[in-house]
Amino acid sequence: MSAPEPSTPARPAVARTTPVEPARPSTALLTDRYELTMLQGALADGTAHRHCVFEVFTRRLPAGRRYGVLAGTGRLLEAIADFRFGPAELEWLASERVVDDRTLAFLEGYRFTGDIHGYAEGEVFFPGSPVLVVDGTFAEAVLLETLVLSILNYDSAVASAASRMTSAAVDRPVIEMGARRAHEAAAVAAARATVIAGFAATSNLEAGRRWGLPTTGTAAHAFTLLHDDEESAFVSQVASQGKGTTLLVDTYDVRKGVEAAVAAAGPGLGAVRLDSGDLLSLAQDVRRQLDQLGATGTKIVVTSDLDEYAIAALAAAPVDSYGVGTSVVTGSGAPTCGMVYKLVAREGADGVMAPVAKTSSSKVSVGGRKKAARRLDAQGRASEEVLVGGPDAAVAAWAPETVDLRPLQVPLVQAGAIDTRWTGPAGVNLAAERHRTSRAELPRGARRLSADEAAIPTVLVEIDG
Amino acid sequence: MSAPEPSTPARPAVARTTPVEPARPSTALLTDRYELTMLQGALADGTAHRHCVFEVFTRRLPAGRRYGVLAGTGRLLEAIADFRFGPAELEWLASERVVDDRTLAFLEGYRFTGDIHGYAEGEVFFPGSPVLVVDGTFAEAVLLETLVLSILNYDSAVASAASRMTSAAVDRPVIEMGARRAHEAAAVAAARATVIAGFAATSNLEAGRRWGLPTTGTAAHAFTLLHDDEESAFVSQVASQGKGTTLLVDTYDVRKGVEAAVAAAGPGLGAVRLDSGDLLSLAQDVRRQLDQLGATGTKIVVTSDLDEYAIAALAAAPVDSYGVGTSVVTGSGAPTCGMVYKLVAREGADGVMAPVAKTSSSKVSVGGRKKAARRLDAQGRASEEVLVGGPDAAVAAWAPETVDLRPLQVPLVQAGAIDTRWTGPAGVNLAAERHRTSRAELPRGARRLSADEAAIPTVLVEIDG
Repeated sequence: MSAPEPSTPARPAVARTTPVEPARPSTALLTDRYELTMLQGALADGTAHRHCVFEVFTRRLPAGRRYGVLAGTGRLLEAIADFRFGPAELEWLASERVVDDRTLAFLEGYRFTGDIHGYAEGEVFFPGSPVLVVDGTFAEAVLLETLVLSILNYDSAVASAASRMTSAAVDRPVIEMGARRAHEAAAVAAARATVIAGFAATSNLEAGRRWGLPTTGTAAHAFTLLHDDEESAFVSQVASQGKGTTLLVDTYDVRKGVEAAVAAAGPGLGAVRLDSGDLLSLAQDVRRQLDQLGATGTKIVVTSDLDEYAIAALAAAPVDSYGVGTSVVTGSGAPTCGMVYKLVAREGADGVMAPVAKTSSSKVSVGGRKKAARRLDAQGRASEEVLVGGPDAAVAAWAPETVDLRPLQVPLVQAGAIDTRWTGPAGVNLAAERHRTSRAELPRGARRLSADEAAIPTVLVEIDG
Repeated sequence: MSAPEPSTPARPAVARTTPVEPARPSTALLTDRYELTMLQGALADGTAHRHCVFEVFTRRLPAGRRYGVLAGTGRLLEAIADFRFGPAELEWLASERVVDDRTLAFLEGYRFTGDIHGYAEGEVFFPGSPVLVVDGTFAEAVLLETLVLSILNYDSAVASAASRMTSAAVDRPVIEMGARRAHEAAAVAAARATVIAGFAATSNLEAGRRWGLPTTGTAAHAFTLLHDDEESAFVSQVASQGKGTTLLVDTYDVRKGVEAAVAAAGPGLGAVRLDSGDLLSLAQDVRRQLDQLGATGTKIVVTSDLDEYAIAALAAAPVDSYGVGTSVVTGSGAPTCGMVYKLVAREGADGVMAPVAKTSSSKVSVGGRKKAARRLDAQGRASEEVLVGGPDAAVAAWAPETVDLRPLQVPLVQAGAIDTRWTGPAGVNLAAERHRTSRAELPRGARRLSADEAAIPTVLVEIDG
């Protein structure tokens, strides 16, 4: 079978439902071993309880990309709530001698009690943007590194690609249908990330259940091949799904397929789907044929290995919606964001917070806590990503004093308490809204697909405190 | 922090343990909606119970690749065992009106009762290789499509990339440490796939627990930055992990780092790790310095954004092991395998099995059930991928009659009963062994990294029955 097939939901697709939550296992072992061995060393030498600031950022955007889209924050907050070392996890760590008894005792009582601030999910970002800032003891903050990066790197890679696709599609709905080309759990996260970036629906049922996303799908080529002929397959599908369904017309001959489709459903047929061939000329032929058959309201859905460039190339074609699979769930050439989780400041032996950074070779980082704001011009267009550095307490207390600076970091976790506005289906809606607003604010031209620099420059401002 | 850091386990790394199984939720909704709507139509019109043969194959290898590596089979069998529509799944499907009551009743009792044959996990494959063949009613076989493809496409993409890396590394151990650059659950599957393709260990704790894989890791740059100076970080790590540990020496100045490392651990230091810079010249400098300090047995581990080409470029460098992250978990440029799940034969209205295939446009498939064997020359080298087609019963009964044909498909599920040899940690060991043997059989030159055609041609042989 080929790519699944969307019906064409009205846009904006907001018919989200209250999801039934599946059981949630511990996320604590979704972690690199060295986080635990570092913890053991730091517990032994007394540095484990030093206050630390870890910052998540990416050093560069994928080649040619103008902006990135932060996604995964809501999933991360839910995963942090489940980051507990229960009996099964502790037993395994003990049996494998991953860490010593003191460390096991620490892990048994572990919960994150620090603060996390970050860009709101759905916000656009640029090289150096501090999209997440984790404040806590070394012990509690270092343990979260792997999970934070896994979630933000994958979800943001998908959202960043998806945003280009919805830009290219302009007002036509785009449907996510890439589950078969991604790890089965990644597929669920990918569906969520694409909806944040403006996709209208997904083929993935678990994403529908877990995040309340609209789901769509009607039939594959196998359904036609199962039947004795195309006509009987179409008649069966219309009987089962109603004439508003989408019939897949390219199993044999497209022209005969369209004829059979309208014969089966009448001119009120919802849509036909094309999943192969030269979609530009095919869509024109099919539109003409549908109109001649009186099916002037029947829509055309296309779904064959589309990416943002193929979508853009179909702008002038009589296409009503796009189904996207492989390219979006694999980040359209950039399957990860390259975000890193860096210690940028920590309490010294003297109890004073000090900036820290790796200095050797090519991976030099800017130390110190940073606040972030986006500078807007008189028309409300973004002009600069402003990072504010300086003495730790001064930066922590900093807030923009002028209306041209929109602050970018919001509290996500405070003293270990997760702000649940960002989680669950409501968090997805909030993130989708944030993305729409944030993207609309970008300079004209930032949404073009052609390769170029980051849409706005990033500047570092030092304050005195 | 940067990439996690491996110790250097002895090779082959076989110290696998009995894993503690986490709770396993239903996998049934990791499915595209159209599988269920097709089922509804087929249940209504009576075709749902037609016997069908679905085949999984890829039309082409990623550009320049010589072979693919099948991985995920063991995970798939475990996921099929958990493919059940329980009360939570049925309630959600009903509340969303995804399918009608008759279909819900069918799903409530669903379990797969058919047969699945496939290439043994770890086997190499080529374009058209029927790596999985699912025999069952349309109803029971169509439901598995999405899950089958999600698992095989991701795991095989990782294993296919990983196999090139272990080829390039020759006898030096390669460690998987890409969790932070993949979805958190995909990371666990990726670790498993890399070990099947010859990796020695992983940084991922959950992969260790679930699959019994060896796990490694000691410290990141954050551990050094946490401390007042590099010396105290190294002294602490050696106190905690022993002098056999791996010290990360490139936080500040590498030369001073190596000096401090040997000062902290003595000349019996296990290894130093380099995570940045020009690794070829740096490794030579560090080797010389270590030898001058008397640390002649101290190993050098390198870990900075390596892929198969970077590994090959370090062949002449005094490097003892490689840590690979981003590139392997994202398939090194090919993040999915492009495998499809095609209906190739089905029972007609007359009760007779007939081959079926899509005929329009560019996605033409070869219909009919196929058996597969690899032809070996007198030296035991693979020379052809032989696919056998013809009348369904004859093909189903076919087995090679000459010793130069090695049969490739093994029974995985028979009348719904899963062969558990392929699952769990034992299945991973079996798959790793299969991969070693299968890759060794390829023609000389097939393991070169340079772009070329598939290592052996695929030929289709028609039998009469």
